[in-house]
Amino acid sequence: MRRFSAVVLCLMLGGIPLESGAESGVTKVLTSVAQNIHVADWSYQGEATGGHKINIVKSILHGGKQEGVDVISVDNGKLRIVVVPTRGMSVLGVTLGEIRLGWDSPVREVVHPALMDLHDRGGLGWLDGFNEWMVRCGLEFAGHPGTDKFQDNTGAENTRPLTLHGKVGNIPASEVEVGVDAKPPHRIRIRGRVDERSFYGAQLEIWTEISTLPGSSEFRIDDVLSNRGDEPQEFELIYHCNYGPPLLEKGSKLRIPVRKITPMNATAAAALDEYSTIAGPTPGISEQVFLIKPLSDLEGKVTVLLENAAGDRGTTVRFSSEQLPYLTIWKNQASHRAGYVTGIEPGTCYPFNRQVERQAGRLPRLGPDRSRKFSLEYAILENRKKVEAAAAGIQVIQEGQQPEVVREPPDLEGDSSR
Amino acid sequence: MRRFSAVVLCLMLGGIPLESGAESGVTKVLTSVAQNIHVADWSYQGEATGGHKINIVKSILHGGKQEGVDVISVDNGKLRIVVVPTRGMSVLGVTLGEIRLGWDSPVREVVHPALMDLHDRGGLGWLDGFNEWMVRCGLEFAGHPGTDKFQDNTGAENTRPLTLHGKVGNIPASEVEVGVDAKPPHRIRIRGRVDERSFYGAQLEIWTEISTLPGSSEFRIDDVLSNRGDEPQEFELIYHCNYGPPLLEKGSKLRIPVRKITPMNATAAAALDEYSTIAGPTPGISEQVFLIKPLSDLEGKVTVLLENAAGDRGTTVRFSSEQLPYLTIWKNQASHRAGYVTGIEPGTCYPFNRQVERQAGRLPRLGPDRSRKFSLEYAILENRKKVEAAAAGIQVIQEGQQPEVVREPPDLEGDSSR
Amino acid sequence: MRRFSAVVLCLMLGGIPLESGAESGVTKVLTSVAQNIHVADWSYQGEATGGHKINIVKSILHGGKQEGVDVISVDNGKLRIVVVPTRGMSVLGVTLGEIRLGWDSPVREVVHPALMDLHDRGGLGWLDGFNEWMVRCGLEFAGHPGTDKFQDNTGAENTRPLTLHGKVGNIPASEVEVGVDAKPPHRIRIRGRVDERSFYGAQLEIWTEISTLPGSSEFRIDDVLSNRGDEPQEFELIYHCNYGPPLLEKGSKLRIPVRKITPMNATAAAALDEYSTIAGPTPGISEQVFLIKPLSDLEGKVTVLLENAAGDRGTTVRFSSEQLPYLTIWKNQASHRAGYVTGIEPGTCYPFNRQVERQAGRLPRLGPDRSRKFSLEYAILENRKKVEAAAAGIQVIQEGQQPEVVREPPDLEGDSSR
Repeated sequence: MRRFSAVVLCLMLGGIPLESGAESGVTKVLTSVAQNIHVADWSYQGEATGGHKINIVKSILHGGKQEGVDVISVDNGKLRIVVVPTRGMSVLGVTLGEIRLGWDSPVREVVHPALMDLHDRGGLGWLDGFNEWMVRCGLEFAGHPGTDKFQDNTGAENTRPLTLHGKVGNIPASEVEVGVDAKPPHRIRIRGRVDERSFYGAQLEIWTEISTLPGSSEFRIDDVLSNRGDEPQEFELIYHCNYGPPLLEKGSKLRIPVRKITPMNATAAAALDEYSTIAGPTPGISEQVFLIKPLSDLEGKVTVLLENAAGDRGTTVRFSSEQLPYLTIWKNQASHRAGYVTGIEPGTCYPFNRQVERQAGRLPRLGPDRSRKFSLEYAILENRKKVEAAAAGIQVIQEGQQPEVVREPPDLEGDSSR
Repeated sequence: MRRFSAVVLCLMLGGIPLESGAESGVTKVLTSVAQNIHVADWSYQGEATGGHKINIVKSILHGGKQEGVDVISVDNGKLRIVVVPTRGMSVLGVTLGEIRLGWDSPVREVVHPALMDLHDRGGLGWLDGFNEWMVRCGLEFAGHPGTDKFQDNTGAENTRPLTLHGKVGNIPASEVEVGVDAKPPHRIRIRGRVDERSFYGAQLEIWTEISTLPGSSEFRIDDVLSNRGDEPQEFELIYHCNYGPPLLEKGSKLRIPVRKITPMNATAAAALDEYSTIAGPTPGISEQVFLIKPLSDLEGKVTVLLENAAGDRGTTVRFSSEQLPYLTIWKNQASHRAGYVTGIEPGTCYPFNRQVERQAGRLPRLGPDRSRKFSLEYAILENRKKVEAAAAGIQVIQEGQQPEVVREPPDLEGDSSR
Repeated sequence: MRRFSAVVLCLMLGGIPLESGAESGVTKVLTSVAQNIHVADWSYQGEATGGHKINIVKSILHGGKQEGVDVISVDNGKLRIVVVPTRGMSVLGVTLGEIRLGWDSPVREVVHPALMDLHDRGGLGWLDGFNEWMVRCGLEFAGHPGTDKFQDNTGAENTRPLTLHGKVGNIPASEVEVGVDAKPPHRIRIRGRVDERSFYGAQLEIWTEISTLPGSSEFRIDDVLSNRGDEPQEFELIYHCNYGPPLLEKGSKLRIPVRKITPMNATAAAALDEYSTIAGPTPGISEQVFLIKPLSDLEGKVTVLLENAAGDRGTTVRFSSEQLPYLTIWKNQASHRAGYVTGIEPGTCYPFNRQVERQAGRLPRLGPDRSRKFSLEYAILENRKKVEAAAAGIQVIQEGQQPEVVREPPDLEGDSSR
């Protein structure tokens, strides 16, 4: 992690006022329900003493289904992160030179939630807007569509048709701000609050933050999920992170410290032994989903590595197994244009329908005004040395720990296909 | 009702033209499909001879789910009324000093209809945007979701899945104008037309008007519902008016002249004897709904009073029992943050599913080009004297008229929960 | 077809730059996802040497459900065409003096797709926005709602609830441009690409073009539908062209070269013998739908004529029976305000639910990167001579070919009402 003793910040787009002076960092509110603010276009450029140019651009997308969608691009001098406030603070993609976190979905536009119908396709409508590198699934529910039977807050038996992966990824953020810390190491932050509120329903809020340091090849997500209701509230949260080429290719490898692995369905069961190896694009192949209880390090953190076939490029995610105890691996080794992609999805649950998760004891509740924090650290590994170091670290965790391999998928009722 | 011999009107925001000169009142078209007009921001300030400052502000909300929502605020010098043209001319709230007509819904934003899905939650999606003091339910249907079986205009048996409380509250108004009458008493009016039109469906229009006099603590709603189709058209209309703190508190009282009262369901049946008394916020309690056939005065008008626990603040609504023969009282005495609220809901029907209302004979039809007028008078009572006078007036109506109390809810099939 | 040796093009709205110089024609990109462009207001005026004034206006509609909808109006000096990019490049209407291609739907506004819910009314939600002269039905599916059972691309049995007439008519165009050819005959073109893309779904694109020559009473549609996925993709496409007064009136006639005609349902069966004669507006009458396999001319083209009662006004459409082998005639002879209209609908299929069309062998597939072209030529006939010539041409095709008349509708299961 690099440090800077000072940051020289300078305005580029003449006449656009900043909230704070250059010496004291910068904070800019881009969207605020509280202040009735929505900034259409804004940008900021600064230069760190290490010579790392910071570039933040807020703009609006046009045309087709993306008319009116807000995007924020942050460049830390090395890494570029694109966030979509209009789609629940999802991260469209991250790039570092030729390396990209992201994939090529058949969905080409960044679809405005106003044009989404989550109930389309029998509850799979979410797929019509799915193309982000990272989209949160939740908050009241995530996972497969289907009717959930549950006890509501009055104690009555209730049912509800749930849609794939919930609502949060299609809710425009209510508060959005970007900033650069005044103090070294001058962390650059994009923050946004997404509210999932309803009458006779959840009152969940998530404050999201994605941040990076000038010149770094790393970034992190720090979210706080809170229940603003007066009753305990069930929740589900999956960080649906999706990787395509160039990191994903024939021969790419997933390195995961595994305590226990279970195939989600029969297709995955048949491919269980190759769960960690990526096949090339295979037209007509079905998705394979693996449910993993990972092993953590001495700090209680799990590290997962995806490396390319040559082993000279890779990316890691590190997260707390207490915060996010369940890891779903989703391999969609279809043709390039069908969406050749692998998902690494840490979560509070697996992506079964919520009633399955409830019965399995994987459905936590938040008490009134209780919060949970979720932190994920990401790194892009630019060379073989870094990849090997990451792989070695994971191997250390696994050593002496034989993974428990369950060969049959769970026997479930009431769960429909992803 | 105060009178003014003259009104001095003056423009505040320089350069914003008014349609009419100050002496002759003011009319401003803010939205018009016919003229292809949508005014983003506009304001008007005038002063009446009594010293009452009139302030009208048209603006647009930003952030989250309320991006792009139009709101109009009218201040008559004493009372402030906020109307939401984008949400079917609903009234977000009315305030007079510390007294407020309105409530604190868990839904905090004024949700744009483009982000609503009325079919969500098994037909309860309407609740995701529900936070107004007054929202009209209708027009083709109101009340509970569920499949309605009916004879269509060709005489064929037809079915249709209805959603909670219909569409009108989530249809942007097609024509919106504000104005101040040129002639004394210089009534201030917000008018809007909402169209509920479809092919092979209803062709209903409602011209809504909310108006008040300078310096008054009273206001009124005057709506005209018309059938622009060539076939008789069923309709339902409920004025869903919702009251929270400070008028609503432990010990608040509803004073209603009752001819007949029926609990809507078992929960309400158990709480029938306390229907007129408000309990404090009670976490986890279920809603209670009471169906009332009210008594009217010599003019055929029904007056309902809600007063606070001390009896020194209150509000009344007065309406014609011919126009709106059915009154629903909805007590949701949940915790503050779950939406502590009581609804006083005059309607052309009760809020059962439309097929129940049809069978019960509570489903009127409008012939081609026929209209029905609905007028409701509201007053905010600022002191004990006014509250006592209102209570006394209601008591006079009830005198000698023993309410018919039905202890069991109606035995219904085919109606799902609110 | 008139010719011009030169076109004098001049800008009207001062300061609005054109992409190309006047001598070399004009091209203007109005919307582009690729270039992140959305032009709110733009216009162009030119004059052809024949004196025909060309007028192109791009604007945005305001108020009610049409807030933010893009429309493009093209006047070729004689004919005016209005296209709606926001609604899938539908054609709102075409006018030539008093003659109009279009109808008076109960839906008065040009509804923004963000306010549509195709799943409303049991899958008939499409009708809530239906008022165009020409709307394309498709692309993945068209026709009646209902659950389709099919084999998906992985070979698995799958089901999906389809909605009436598919999605394309409610998808905003991703690329839109207008232009006037630099070379004689200076064809005026409105082009737009509409994408129907989803993950685990179709990847269909349609490049639409409607064009006309200066001073002409004719215009044409030239569309190219492409499959951008890696698997063969089923598709359906119906050009749902709808005609109301003044061409439609009591005694108007449809002239269609018929190889085989089948009533779609019992109502149509009872009215089969009068299929070609238009009745006056008849309140409460049901729609009648006829399924026609038409006869083509020596060039493989089918011509259909609609003429008014006097036979001195009419309109023709001409299309390839290879491109569009099936013709649906939809007679909705209801009252004027209920939508007195007749649809002439060339298609790749009939408007049954897709599973019916699949079983009947009327559901083609497009291979990866394969395209199909669809061309339709329209003419407005301003006098008796032109009408008689068109009628004579059709009669020649029919001569010696006795139409096969099927008296009973097909015996189908799993298809719900239109």
